[in-house]
Amino acid sequence: MNKYALFHQSDSRYAYALGEKSFRIILRTAHEKFGKIEILYNNKYDFTKRRDTAKMVKFADDGLFDYYKADFELSDVRLAYIFRIEYGGRTYYFSEDGIQEDYDFTLAYYTFFQFPYINGADVMPVVGWSEKAVFYQIFIDRFARGNFKKDDSYINRKWEEKCDRYTFAGGDLNGITAKLGYIKDLGVNALYLTPVFKSETNHKYSITDYSTVDPQFGDKDDIAELLTKAHAAGIRIIIDAVFNHCDKNHACFQDVLINGKNSEFYDSFIIDGDFPDEQKGNYAHFADCKYMPKWNTNDPRTRRYLIDIALDYLGWGFDGLRLDVADELSHEFLRQLRREVKEKYPDALLLGEVWHNNRNWLRGEQLDGVMNYKLQKILADYFGAYPITAKQAAERMNGLLLMNTEQANTMALNFLDNHDTPRFFRFTGGNKDKLLCALCAVFVFPGMPCVFYGTELPLDGGGDPDCRQTFDWTFSEQSGAYAENFKTILGLKRQPALTGGNAVITAENGVLKIVRNNGGERITAYFNTSGKVKSVVPDGEVLFSLNCKDGKIYDDGAAVIKINI
Amino acid sequence: MNKYALFHQSDSRYAYALGEKSFRIILRTAHEKFGKIEILYNNKYDFTKRRDTAKMVKFADDGLFDYYKADFELSDVRLAYIFRIEYGGRTYYFSEDGIQEDYDFTLAYYTFFQFPYINGADVMPVVGWSEKAVFYQIFIDRFARGNFKKDDSYINRKWEEKCDRYTFAGGDLNGITAKLGYIKDLGVNALYLTPVFKSETNHKYSITDYSTVDPQFGDKDDIAELLTKAHAAGIRIIIDAVFNHCDKNHACFQDVLINGKNSEFYDSFIIDGDFPDEQKGNYAHFADCKYMPKWNTNDPRTRRYLIDIALDYLGWGFDGLRLDVADELSHEFLRQLRREVKEKYPDALLLGEVWHNNRNWLRGEQLDGVMNYKLQKILADYFGAYPITAKQAAERMNGLLLMNTEQANTMALNFLDNHDTPRFFRFTGGNKDKLLCALCAVFVFPGMPCVFYGTELPLDGGGDPDCRQTFDWTFSEQSGAYAENFKTILGLKRQPALTGGNAVITAENGVLKIVRNNGGERITAYFNTSGKVKSVVPDGEVLFSLNCKDGKIYDDGAAVIKINI
Repeated sequence: MNKYALFHQSDSRYAYALGEKSFRIILRTAHEKFGKIEILYNNKYDFTKRRDTAKMVKFADDGLFDYYKADFELSDVRLAYIFRIEYGGRTYYFSEDGIQEDYDFTLAYYTFFQFPYINGADVMPVVGWSEKAVFYQIFIDRFARGNFKKDDSYINRKWEEKCDRYTFAGGDLNGITAKLGYIKDLGVNALYLTPVFKSETNHKYSITDYSTVDPQFGDKDDIAELLTKAHAAGIRIIIDAVFNHCDKNHACFQDVLINGKNSEFYDSFIIDGDFPDEQKGNYAHFADCKYMPKWNTNDPRTRRYLIDIALDYLGWGFDGLRLDVADELSHEFLRQLRREVKEKYPDALLLGEVWHNNRNWLRGEQLDGVMNYKLQKILADYFGAYPITAKQAAERMNGLLLMNTEQANTMALNFLDNHDTPRFFRFTGGNKDKLLCALCAVFVFPGMPCVFYGTELPLDGGGDPDCRQTFDWTFSEQSGAYAENFKTILGLKRQPALTGGNAVITAENGVLKIVRNNGGERITAYFNTSGKVKSVVPDGEVLFSLNCKDGKIYDDGAAVIKINI
Repeated sequence: MNKYALFHQSDSRYAYALGEKSFRIILRTAHEKFGKIEILYNNKYDFTKRRDTAKMVKFADDGLFDYYKADFELSDVRLAYIFRIEYGGRTYYFSEDGIQEDYDFTLAYYTFFQFPYINGADVMPVVGWSEKAVFYQIFIDRFARGNFKKDDSYINRKWEEKCDRYTFAGGDLNGITAKLGYIKDLGVNALYLTPVFKSETNHKYSITDYSTVDPQFGDKDDIAELLTKAHAAGIRIIIDAVFNHCDKNHACFQDVLINGKNSEFYDSFIIDGDFPDEQKGNYAHFADCKYMPKWNTNDPRTRRYLIDIALDYLGWGFDGLRLDVADELSHEFLRQLRREVKEKYPDALLLGEVWHNNRNWLRGEQLDGVMNYKLQKILADYFGAYPITAKQAAERMNGLLLMNTEQANTMALNFLDNHDTPRFFRFTGGNKDKLLCALCAVFVFPGMPCVFYGTELPLDGGGDPDCRQTFDWTFSEQSGAYAENFKTILGLKRQPALTGGNAVITAENGVLKIVRNNGGERITAYFNTSGKVKSVVPDGEVLFSLNCKDGKIYDDGAAVIKINI
């Protein structure tokens, strides 16, 4: 047996509570032929005397490793367990002491794995509405203009002209409100809005005043109207909360610029010296942007200030927050934010921008979910410009799902592109079938699908700022085959089988296969970007198909089949 | 290269901040011959453009794996990094994407490991006084009686007679106060007291009233006197805080017994049904002890009640808490406890009873340290009744230290035995040299050494309740060679080299070797339980030796050498 590959860790993504009485255990092994793999378990006080047995089932392969799983319903929630592994005609025991052929049960209290007690307060809950959410991300300046009475002297480009980094095109909150019918008709039931508060930039990620809506976008009444009408239409709205940094013209930073260490806001920033110096940039700031000084979320008073802002936003009626640069906020800040937010607004969704390993944000006491950049990269590689095989895609998708718990996977925000990446259409080299195929994968993958405004056209564009072009409201394709397929894909999320956080993902005969099971139904999705025709599609109700015919799936094709089970 | 063995995880015990600018990175590999292993790193925004390089050094072997380490001082605390590994004449890159021979630095933003920002609020601090702490654990009923005026009708055994589960021997707080001089003379500077509050049992772990000192032990004035005199003698005191459960006669549980679901305390317990039923035991309780109902630390009001008690204790002057059955308390409770305790008493030590994998308690937002049962098991196996080799002991010690961060290791409470285990003397089959040898290992291992009362005699005894015999104040050996060696060992902790959380632990020629480096000095400890004479001891100041002579270390021998470096 490959002992190097064997891995388990208690009280982790390999052993966690799904509910107050239900528990999941995962074991990692090499790709090897095992006999039975079982869990011997009991409550920790009786484990030395007797054990129950549960069989583990292989459920995933990430390329290097296989993964076995067992889910339990427990009566006594003080769980002690070890693994019994049959291999090569021998029986091994795997405990905190490692692999042994002889395991001394009388001393098990020292060596078993344990989950000492499932406390409800520690079980990560899933925000109910996230299970069916279909998000649509709007970059406000570029989506739609609704207010034609506002002072529009700031607009420096005609709507139909190409935008650059310094363009102000005139989109606003009234524009979104006016398009709610259109948005709902797409099949969207949740909006993610980039920031709306006072800022000198078109993107508004550099905020000078967190309480005032930027007049370019509207005012508080416009927000109220948007929220009221959206909620009436069954559309929730989450808002970008930029708590990592502000704009240098924020009153607090201005005060520190003038008063230095004597300013009451000195500790709200991270300054090396008595005064911040814009030339030197002797203070923490976002990336290399000296005009965006970083808030000091280690400072309790600054935490209070920012969390009060968050509570304000939710008080207005927003349904959640998307925390910009969440990974640079102190964990301490995020814990306090969650505590205070969830106490008042248990259904508020807390999403964070974390591009990398995100386990430490998703243990249940900080964020609900993250922007799933890791999925986006896999999709870009498989459907886009950097081709990988179906097998590689399946392996990486499994690796991704295994990075977190089922709850966290359920609340991941899955997307093809956003305001910080090139348009996915660009990744595909302008291939609409590939784009739809990839979008379909976003919808059948566990998590919350999110469509960047304009994908329905589709808009094209390279990296920021090119991905932020204005929506073309004259575009005729909105009623063509592409638009119909687009809507069909968005409608998939209504299928019960596509809720929850589980998926079985494999590659068969060069075809990527994602199987979802839930609510007494099964959905199987097939994707083919192999360049060859594949015969794979079994019987069942075809919910969506692209480039499929006569039981064959052609290149850049996808099929989503529902089977009642 | 053995890819199965390669392991790293960002923002974990393999990548953590030691301070606001200092950082440690650890890589796990198989036992293989590598060329250079390096870290390529920079701040995450500049990583694609250029990288600095740091060499990793092998520092530990846990039997199956080797571990490499690099410590950094950072100017920019937004760390991105990947590993460059030379193996078999080739160069590999190890990132979040796994092992590759070609690494595309232009796409590194998707795949590098990162620690997004070192926030001071997230850096686990070390409680200053813990670095030099020498603990002595007292089981109060059995240590010493000081008050001869109290109503002693509860005492049911003469002091010199053998105690059993139901014995009340008469030890009290005045007894401890009276022996402070003796305790200080041993070299002790911290006491860990088992519970002192109102309870019907001799051990007082089943509390009926958390605010009243048990009259068998004394009253609040006696606590005040003990604390005042102890502090004056430079001795800190931590107290057992039993928040997992209470006694069925606690007023809250009594109220629920009577009023069931209508009791305002119903949610303070975990009850299956409208009323708790002592016969059925239809409520959560400690182990199989129905007379100790478990507090519901998921309930905010119960958390408030217990945390106020904790704050009271610290307000009286106790220097920290030892949380009984800490692993069954909700993490949410422990986070709130820490927040509130550390805000008022930043130097209060929070220790928990966690026997198994304890990572989730030691991330810096819950406990400071745990009772190190894993070390106790290794010492019992190596020095005691279940012999393992020096090599096995070294490997398991390394595995143990690698389970947590340096900060958590520094605050682990290391012991040979306590009120819940047999006396270690029993493990050794009554061999005093083995006992001293093992005690010496406790003192040179990273963490806080803790001696169970009576080890200086030594007291003998099997498991609970036999390990809780009365202290023999007439014992003559207190002035013999054993007692002298005992004191010498306790004095070792004054050596600067024995502070901090690092150790290099190996086996050489069948001898266990623990090397500690700190404060410009090095201490090397050798242990021999091989049954053979070993020649190992190099030059240096001999701080302690047992069964050593002429550069040889005999069986059950130990040597502790200091070298100025």
